[in-house]
Amino acid sequence: MDVTTAPTPAPFNLLLALDLLGVFAFALDGALTGIRSARVDIVGVAVLGVTTAIGGGIIRDLLLGVTPATFGDWRYLAVAMAGALLAFFLGHRMDRLATPIALADAAGLSLFCVAGAAKALEHGFGPAQAVILGAITGVGGGTLRDVLINRIPVVISRDSDIYAIPALLGAGAFTAAAVMGLPGAWTAGVSALLCFVIRVVAVRYRWNAPGPPGTRRGEAPGRDGR
Amino acid sequence: MDVTTAPTPAPFNLLLALDLLGVFAFALDGALTGIRSARVDIVGVAVLGVTTAIGGGIIRDLLLGVTPATFGDWRYLAVAMAGALLAFFLGHRMDRLATPIALADAAGLSLFCVAGAAKALEHGFGPAQAVILGAITGVGGGTLRDVLINRIPVVISRDSDIYAIPALLGAGAFTAAAVMGLPGAWTAGVSALLCFVIRVVAVRYRWNAPGPPGTRRGEAPGRDGR
Amino acid sequence: MDVTTAPTPAPFNLLLALDLLGVFAFALDGALTGIRSARVDIVGVAVLGVTTAIGGGIIRDLLLGVTPATFGDWRYLAVAMAGALLAFFLGHRMDRLATPIALADAAGLSLFCVAGAAKALEHGFGPAQAVILGAITGVGGGTLRDVLINRIPVVISRDSDIYAIPALLGAGAFTAAAVMGLPGAWTAGVSALLCFVIRVVAVRYRWNAPGPPGTRRGEAPGRDGR
Repeated sequence: MDVTTAPTPAPFNLLLALDLLGVFAFALDGALTGIRSARVDIVGVAVLGVTTAIGGGIIRDLLLGVTPATFGDWRYLAVAMAGALLAFFLGHRMDRLATPIALADAAGLSLFCVAGAAKALEHGFGPAQAVILGAITGVGGGTLRDVLINRIPVVISRDSDIYAIPALLGAGAFTAAAVMGLPGAWTAGVSALLCFVIRVVAVRYRWNAPGPPGTRRGEAPGRDGR
Repeated sequence: MDVTTAPTPAPFNLLLALDLLGVFAFALDGALTGIRSARVDIVGVAVLGVTTAIGGGIIRDLLLGVTPATFGDWRYLAVAMAGALLAFFLGHRMDRLATPIALADAAGLSLFCVAGAAKALEHGFGPAQAVILGAITGVGGGTLRDVLINRIPVVISRDSDIYAIPALLGAGAFTAAAVMGLPGAWTAGVSALLCFVIRVVAVRYRWNAPGPPGTRRGEAPGRDGR
Repeated sequence: MDVTTAPTPAPFNLLLALDLLGVFAFALDGALTGIRSARVDIVGVAVLGVTTAIGGGIIRDLLLGVTPATFGDWRYLAVAMAGALLAFFLGHRMDRLATPIALADAAGLSLFCVAGAAKALEHGFGPAQAVILGAITGVGGGTLRDVLINRIPVVISRDSDIYAIPALLGAGAFTAAAVMGLPGAWTAGVSALLCFVIRVVAVRYRWNAPGPPGTRRGEAPGRDGR
């Protein structure tokens, strides 16, 4: 095991496919969340869908110090816009249902945490940074979405099911396998699946991360408590 | 028509003048909005004015992968600060009037959507990216302002008159003309005027973009609805 | 006095030590603020602590056009995480006390405004930009923290004691001394102390910056007033 050598990244085509799938899933999620929880118009649905879809990748690229990939590649914007508009026109048939949002969100989270960790390794960052950047790629878009619609982001709220933790585990599994030199494509698929399953089970059984010692579960700490 | 050749950008002096005019207009707008809708002090008025004025350009430059121009050029900060302080000291004479805010905002939007599209073309980006980056330059500063004062950004709200659409049309007109090789200065002026007129008429006659199918105009979707 | 020559920056070790101390203080502050004012879980406390601690430096580096230093240097993340977790596990013993939050916040503000100005000068920026970037480094992390927990940022609120002004004075003192060629280490210490003392006295005696003319102190301007 040679940690100092940059591990072989997942092949380009796989990375791109993962990225575009994640973009589509997050665009659906962001657009549906916008329709459900704020008075947005068609522009707002498009902005929220695209921001959720490509926001995490943009934050990752800014932290890596590279030009955000999204604007040199029209496919990202096209796929994000397609997902947002699909949700706009068909969302009224599903906007009372939490399930499609939860599944799209879990899919985006899983694909992005792996793609983000892969890109960090590709740029020569160490394993710890790769895991953290993977998780940021996964949760970043949804955090921007929540800031825009004026609610406490899912990633920090005690009333949300665990969200960053599956992303950290998925990114961690991929990074560990990459450092050990395991083949990229299989590793990426298994790591994303790991994150997806944990997130979906967490939503189903309402797994919450612990709050600070000395606070009770139902206790509202102040005016910002929900 | 040769789309692959990067079109001749508008001359530097025009770009700079457009930029500084837009900075001044948005600084007034951001500062007056802050005075009207939040309990801010003189620092808050300056921060909101400057953020509204240069925030869109900073987001554009980060997405283009270039160092934000604002910090290498003292004129941007000086003009933004002048606009914010003017609003601070004279705002109590106009803060009940929606008109100066609306006009300053429309002026900034018009000038920035054209300047943003011009800069994107200058850096070799394609027409689609130029239109989107132009619109982001126009709406970005106001979106940061709304996030800071804790309200749903104008650009996504169904209760706001159309805002991104005039910016997309202005940036689109400029980009189309630039791709066709029309002279930069005239094109920039006409495109900015197009955006300005559409935005002002939209505010006057309360043009809203459509909401998602299945929702009614006055319906509040949840706790975030206004 | 030779303004055009880039002044000798503070030595590397001092800069790093200042930075890490500021990171630790702001991590405590961000985590304790999160525990007090929102329903956050352990992930939320970590995110708020780390964001408050390194957010200002990341914004500064993006504005300088350099890769954010934080992700190439594991010490920043480790120190930030240590501060956040310390606050998570011990915060219930201090979360009713405003004093430790206020002191940690003043320490972070003081150290960051000087470190930010020093880095701007080191990169060849002029004195005005150095002062502004120093202040942004100081107040940026707390502003991101406030946006995430959905409240009006301290830096713009009229109901907060002065916050940006001590940072501007600390960054200004350091920049002036650096331009005059005074020795970096002493200058840095005295400038940080100046900012710290002004901020602590401002909190103790509730110094507020003036609001816009024509508004009264207790007046709520609208739905966003607190």
